[in-house]
Amino acid sequence: MTDYQAFRVELKDKIAHVAINRPEKVNAMNAAFWSEIVDIFQWVDDTDEIRVVVLSGEGKHFSAGIDLQLLAQAASQMGSDVGRNAERLRRQILKLQSSFNAVDRCRKPVIAAIQGYCIGGAIDLIAACDMRYSTLDAQFSIKEIDMGMAADVGTLQRLPRIIGDGMMRELAYTGRTVDGQEAKSIGLVNRTYPDQPSLMAGVFAMAADIASKSPVAIRGTKEMIRYMRDHRVDDGLEYIATWNAAMLQSADLKVAMAAHMSKQKPDFAD
Amino acid sequence: MTDYQAFRVELKDKIAHVAINRPEKVNAMNAAFWSEIVDIFQWVDDTDEIRVVVLSGEGKHFSAGIDLQLLAQAASQMGSDVGRNAERLRRQILKLQSSFNAVDRCRKPVIAAIQGYCIGGAIDLIAACDMRYSTLDAQFSIKEIDMGMAADVGTLQRLPRIIGDGMMRELAYTGRTVDGQEAKSIGLVNRTYPDQPSLMAGVFAMAADIASKSPVAIRGTKEMIRYMRDHRVDDGLEYIATWNAAMLQSADLKVAMAAHMSKQKPDFAD
Amino acid sequence: MTDYQAFRVELKDKIAHVAINRPEKVNAMNAAFWSEIVDIFQWVDDTDEIRVVVLSGEGKHFSAGIDLQLLAQAASQMGSDVGRNAERLRRQILKLQSSFNAVDRCRKPVIAAIQGYCIGGAIDLIAACDMRYSTLDAQFSIKEIDMGMAADVGTLQRLPRIIGDGMMRELAYTGRTVDGQEAKSIGLVNRTYPDQPSLMAGVFAMAADIASKSPVAIRGTKEMIRYMRDHRVDDGLEYIATWNAAMLQSADLKVAMAAHMSKQKPDFAD
Amino acid sequence: MTDYQAFRVELKDKIAHVAINRPEKVNAMNAAFWSEIVDIFQWVDDTDEIRVVVLSGEGKHFSAGIDLQLLAQAASQMGSDVGRNAERLRRQILKLQSSFNAVDRCRKPVIAAIQGYCIGGAIDLIAACDMRYSTLDAQFSIKEIDMGMAADVGTLQRLPRIIGDGMMRELAYTGRTVDGQEAKSIGLVNRTYPDQPSLMAGVFAMAADIASKSPVAIRGTKEMIRYMRDHRVDDGLEYIATWNAAMLQSADLKVAMAAHMSKQKPDFAD
Amino acid sequence: MTDYQAFRVELKDKIAHVAINRPEKVNAMNAAFWSEIVDIFQWVDDTDEIRVVVLSGEGKHFSAGIDLQLLAQAASQMGSDVGRNAERLRRQILKLQSSFNAVDRCRKPVIAAIQGYCIGGAIDLIAACDMRYSTLDAQFSIKEIDMGMAADVGTLQRLPRIIGDGMMRELAYTGRTVDGQEAKSIGLVNRTYPDQPSLMAGVFAMAADIASKSPVAIRGTKEMIRYMRDHRVDDGLEYIATWNAAMLQSADLKVAMAAHMSKQKPDFAD
Amino acid sequence: MTDYQAFRVELKDKIAHVAINRPEKVNAMNAAFWSEIVDIFQWVDDTDEIRVVVLSGEGKHFSAGIDLQLLAQAASQMGSDVGRNAERLRRQILKLQSSFNAVDRCRKPVIAAIQGYCIGGAIDLIAACDMRYSTLDAQFSIKEIDMGMAADVGTLQRLPRIIGDGMMRELAYTGRTVDGQEAKSIGLVNRTYPDQPSLMAGVFAMAADIASKSPVAIRGTKEMIRYMRDHRVDDGLEYIATWNAAMLQSADLKVAMAAHMSKQKPDFAD
Repeated sequence: MTDYQAFRVELKDKIAHVAINRPEKVNAMNAAFWSEIVDIFQWVDDTDEIRVVVLSGEGKHFSAGIDLQLLAQAASQMGSDVGRNAERLRRQILKLQSSFNAVDRCRKPVIAAIQGYCIGGAIDLIAACDMRYSTLDAQFSIKEIDMGMAADVGTLQRLPRIIGDGMMRELAYTGRTVDGQEAKSIGLVNRTYPDQPSLMAGVFAMAADIASKSPVAIRGTKEMIRYMRDHRVDDGLEYIATWNAAMLQSADLKVAMAAHMSKQKPDFAD
Repeated sequence: MTDYQAFRVELKDKIAHVAINRPEKVNAMNAAFWSEIVDIFQWVDDTDEIRVVVLSGEGKHFSAGIDLQLLAQAASQMGSDVGRNAERLRRQILKLQSSFNAVDRCRKPVIAAIQGYCIGGAIDLIAACDMRYSTLDAQFSIKEIDMGMAADVGTLQRLPRIIGDGMMRELAYTGRTVDGQEAKSIGLVNRTYPDQPSLMAGVFAMAADIASKSPVAIRGTKEMIRYMRDHRVDDGLEYIATWNAAMLQSADLKVAMAAHMSKQKPDFAD
Repeated sequence: MTDYQAFRVELKDKIAHVAINRPEKVNAMNAAFWSEIVDIFQWVDDTDEIRVVVLSGEGKHFSAGIDLQLLAQAASQMGSDVGRNAERLRRQILKLQSSFNAVDRCRKPVIAAIQGYCIGGAIDLIAACDMRYSTLDAQFSIKEIDMGMAADVGTLQRLPRIIGDGMMRELAYTGRTVDGQEAKSIGLVNRTYPDQPSLMAGVFAMAADIASKSPVAIRGTKEMIRYMRDHRVDDGLEYIATWNAAMLQSADLKVAMAAHMSKQKPDFAD
Repeated sequence: MTDYQAFRVELKDKIAHVAINRPEKVNAMNAAFWSEIVDIFQWVDDTDEIRVVVLSGEGKHFSAGIDLQLLAQAASQMGSDVGRNAERLRRQILKLQSSFNAVDRCRKPVIAAIQGYCIGGAIDLIAACDMRYSTLDAQFSIKEIDMGMAADVGTLQRLPRIIGDGMMRELAYTGRTVDGQEAKSIGLVNRTYPDQPSLMAGVFAMAADIASKSPVAIRGTKEMIRYMRDHRVDDGLEYIATWNAAMLQSADLKVAMAAHMSKQKPDFAD
Repeated sequence: MTDYQAFRVELKDKIAHVAINRPEKVNAMNAAFWSEIVDIFQWVDDTDEIRVVVLSGEGKHFSAGIDLQLLAQAASQMGSDVGRNAERLRRQILKLQSSFNAVDRCRKPVIAAIQGYCIGGAIDLIAACDMRYSTLDAQFSIKEIDMGMAADVGTLQRLPRIIGDGMMRELAYTGRTVDGQEAKSIGLVNRTYPDQPSLMAGVFAMAADIASKSPVAIRGTKEMIRYMRDHRVDDGLEYIATWNAAMLQSADLKVAMAAHMSKQKPDFAD
Repeated sequence: MTDYQAFRVELKDKIAHVAINRPEKVNAMNAAFWSEIVDIFQWVDDTDEIRVVVLSGEGKHFSAGIDLQLLAQAASQMGSDVGRNAERLRRQILKLQSSFNAVDRCRKPVIAAIQGYCIGGAIDLIAACDMRYSTLDAQFSIKEIDMGMAADVGTLQRLPRIIGDGMMRELAYTGRTVDGQEAKSIGLVNRTYPDQPSLMAGVFAMAADIASKSPVAIRGTKEMIRYMRDHRVDDGLEYIATWNAAMLQSADLKVAMAAHMSKQKPDFAD
């Protein structure tokens, strides 16, 4: 496995564990972070053995969001023509977005495990994951508003589908901090845990469960839910029918059926 | 009223009661089920007297989902050419979907009353209903994942709008069982009842209330909410304006206004 | 500031307070209401000093919805040709809708503070606001169904994104009254307060917080969330990239950054 | 083959020939027409042997459009309540539309061969076909405008994609008659022929050509073009990728490749 | 009728003639033009007597597009903050666009009659009309590219649907001048005339024809074609069904039918 | 400049000339082609000096489409599980598509110059270009149908917007060869030239013209037209307003204005 500067990556029992690994910088997202995450999720996508991903942060906090040095550097590259600056900025933002799109489009489910700070860009990141779990004392904040800018790497786009329109606006306008318990009550996380060890245990148990399912079925299910975020019900029905036209010819249904009959655990090929 | 193999159907006090009636098979959805449900909801749509539908399951369970014999039979019809198999499968899936589309598109509200198991295809079915109510000990599970397949008759398409994107993925990837109380807390059902008699009493009371409203207004309301699941706010505003351009010329507004003035209960024509 | 018949309007500390001011008529929405609200929100949009709006109702109730005299008057204008009536009605509905569209499209956040009755057209109105807060004993009801009509000025279009599809249908079909506590639990309001004074205090504190943020960032954030109600995630990402291409060249980022460094409160230009 | 009142239907050499057969009534579309066309295209869809359809009109004219008796009959069923009339009319129109949707959604290509009058409902019909060919002296007219109504069974929906927005409006507002030559120049027909025998010869030659291709490939191609009329380029690319994921595993590619190598005509299974 | 600075407006025989009236300035679009056009088309929309509009330019040319003084003035209002400038510019562009949206959304058909120069903003304007007719020697050019900017009041949005994607790009990238004959061959105009008198005669004859049709039917037809520019075929079919549910109850059908039977010209109410 | 196996690439006078360079293989698209084209257009996008691209084919023919060896190789990688094969095929198709998406999304206009054969995959390629020009004797054919498959790298998605729905279907179902003259008449190419030297001269003259325009304006124009292929008119208007909010602050407008005043040719920065 490749060595990364901003991440620690492990693959064990069909579960990829991707941990942001700059605890001394509160896991702030530096240049290495933004480019390595693309490579890592490409590797996840291409490696048949991987069935599911756990995304976490080393140390006391999940992540404090984008590294301010990165912003300062972008600011320093500005030229004198507003139009050309705008073109350059637009392309830079699209590039940052593509880093989290790599998480969103990854064919395998991505589970976020969150403790401590989860701020600014970190919210953009977890909004691109499939599911979110946290400690009770985790602290979530859409901090971009306090940097004088509208969040632009995914929070405003993906979060409304997760927490609803009303609370979304309050959190985005005020940057107010939400703890684990409130996060659970508004649907931002699916479950809370008393501390990080129990969080990691819970998340890895769920990952192991998902890893035991048919990978063909899991990937089809993820693709369909992802698709429905943006498409009509009738289009979604037609899409799954076209998808399953091939996938129902897979051996996994027979494996599942045989296991069901014999009351045994099915064993699916990668 | 026609006799059905898989259903028991009654019409009383403007309420159609449609009950899945294969309790000895845990109300599993066999071939008769999939074709009769289309006829029944066509009849509901065409019968002016019917104002609202209650959908329930006879016996201890709502339904265990699709009858596995049906799947086995489909599997046995596979030929040797993958492409032609795919075309056939695609059309079969579209046909199954159209059975639940008949529920979704029914002009009259459909209320699901759920006790015991509500598994696999049964989740697809209740997601096509307008509202869901259950006993406390009802058990919901997106079971398709354990059959080695992505659900393909509506769960993945309709449920995210009801329970939100985050919890949707957990339930679809793990097939985890959810009881009535959790179903209420995530918005899968609107209310729970301690047992089946109180469930049926509660659901029929609500049905009677809906049946007393202007049927023109109820049908317009349903059409608009159904439309908004897939359309933009501006399109929805234009659509209701065009719809009400005719419907506000109905007598029902005068009936309602007169009743309002005289403090009496309005009596609307079918 | 202009004098209004149906409203009382104040501007203080960058917060516009817009209060429906017909307490003796339970703040019913008469002809003046529907036309003045457009002017008021045009003024809000055009006045750089205004950063945020609080919308409330004078007296014991927020509003009882559309004034029935207005409906009676519209009914009396009907001619003999159904087609021409339909055209006229369609245009009248579109015109009423445009009054609340002015709230929805206002570039500054609009916070609704609700006590007492919030009925019929009042639900349409608060659904066009950014966020909703109420007293515990507020009473919400989609009353249109009891007037023999489908709601046509925004409730059916905007509310499903706020409270979810399942509960939406129950409330729209039955017209059932929901109190503040239930409103909070289904996401209709973000928070409840024991009484009106504490409600107004809470809402104005939040308004002051929002008013202290970069107005460029707040307006961008609102535009993005509004956009996402109707658009795809990929379109939304492209839109914010294009938007921020200009806005990140604003001085507000430097002001925010400097304040962050010096641990002082930033002071943004209007 | 079933006997039809309004059609003459033949199946020969994998080509279904569907001819409107009421020449004494200028092939006006009566009640039998509207219901039989659904059955016929269901049969086309279900019969593997059929690869392509030619749709024509017996006698001197293609068709004069909807039978006015049908309209008169619908008018006579009107009741006294505008709202309930509107609901009934809406459902009747949707039902008529579904007759031509059956042509549009048919999985096999449908070629229209047009001579003489092609008026009103006949334009709606040919707009639902894949391609149109005519004699030089064919006469096309969107006649609905002269009946005091907007065309409502497909012309206004499908024709703009075929002839462009500008000329579409002129023809729809004026009902002006267009002959074969102008129809060719604006893209309404793909080619003209001097007389009906040469038209039928030309159309059947093209039908025979299409019938000789891989039916799996033809149906995929039709589905994709139909899909693109209403969808985005990126959605279309994803859809064909999902579709071909199964279809490229079909034997037809090998058959085509082998024929290509041996310079022989391929022979594809139905 | 109101007096306008930038237009000459007449109403005769149910036809509104709206002529840009600054021939000494080649009908360049000044501030008066942009605001008066909104009022004029509001009047057109509100005046039942008007059935159709002819839009033309006084003097030798249709129009040279936006008045450069207006651009210079906008440029001079720029402040020092790029972000706030961007907000102001964005709103100004949206305001200019709304002037031509008033033409596009006008319920009555708008026919453009074009001679001489039709340049820059004038292309944006005619793209918002229903149909375009010109003299043979008219000169069309998407001139914005030579002002160093992308056209932003409608050309790039509306023209691709009229002339197709391929030629659209050539004309927009090069600003190349197209004469009447080529304009006809690419679908930009529906017909050319040898000179302005014959152009005006031809256009007014068509306008008179349209004015003699059922106004209810014409407006429904326009609404449907406008709708189809942006919507799916299935949505369009549902929309016309809902629309005609009211409009088929209009007297105009009976008037048309009676006229048809008696072989007389129908006379429709406004 | 990098050396490529399948292309010859030159940059001169701000024009990038990208020529497919396998004339001995009729410019068939091999593995090198599909990966190098992505790199080339990334380089085009990133190189400010490049303003426009000419895409051509070396030798007597533009291109014979995908290299059949590539298809044979893909076929040989098939495993035994239909479902896993389907996933692999789907990803391979998406990857091929992304090669032509790189052309489509390139910020600079791409002009295709076509002589001789333009077959199968070559049609997919030119459909992703901005504009197409050809010799009179060029030969176009959607050849995929004769390989037993539906075209899946862009032809069926992009071409209907260029040549219209009617002729699209004829060409896609029959694979019929179209020469330059017919290609011009159906809008597939914008202009024809008698031979290749005059074609290249004409295309480079147009490229030089485009290269002399403001690059900021050209890129905005391309983005808007590309956007309109898939979006609504109202979304497009809002998008250009947001885009130009930044771009109208560019120096290019002043440069253009000054040149206009002084009747000189403007000189825009890259």
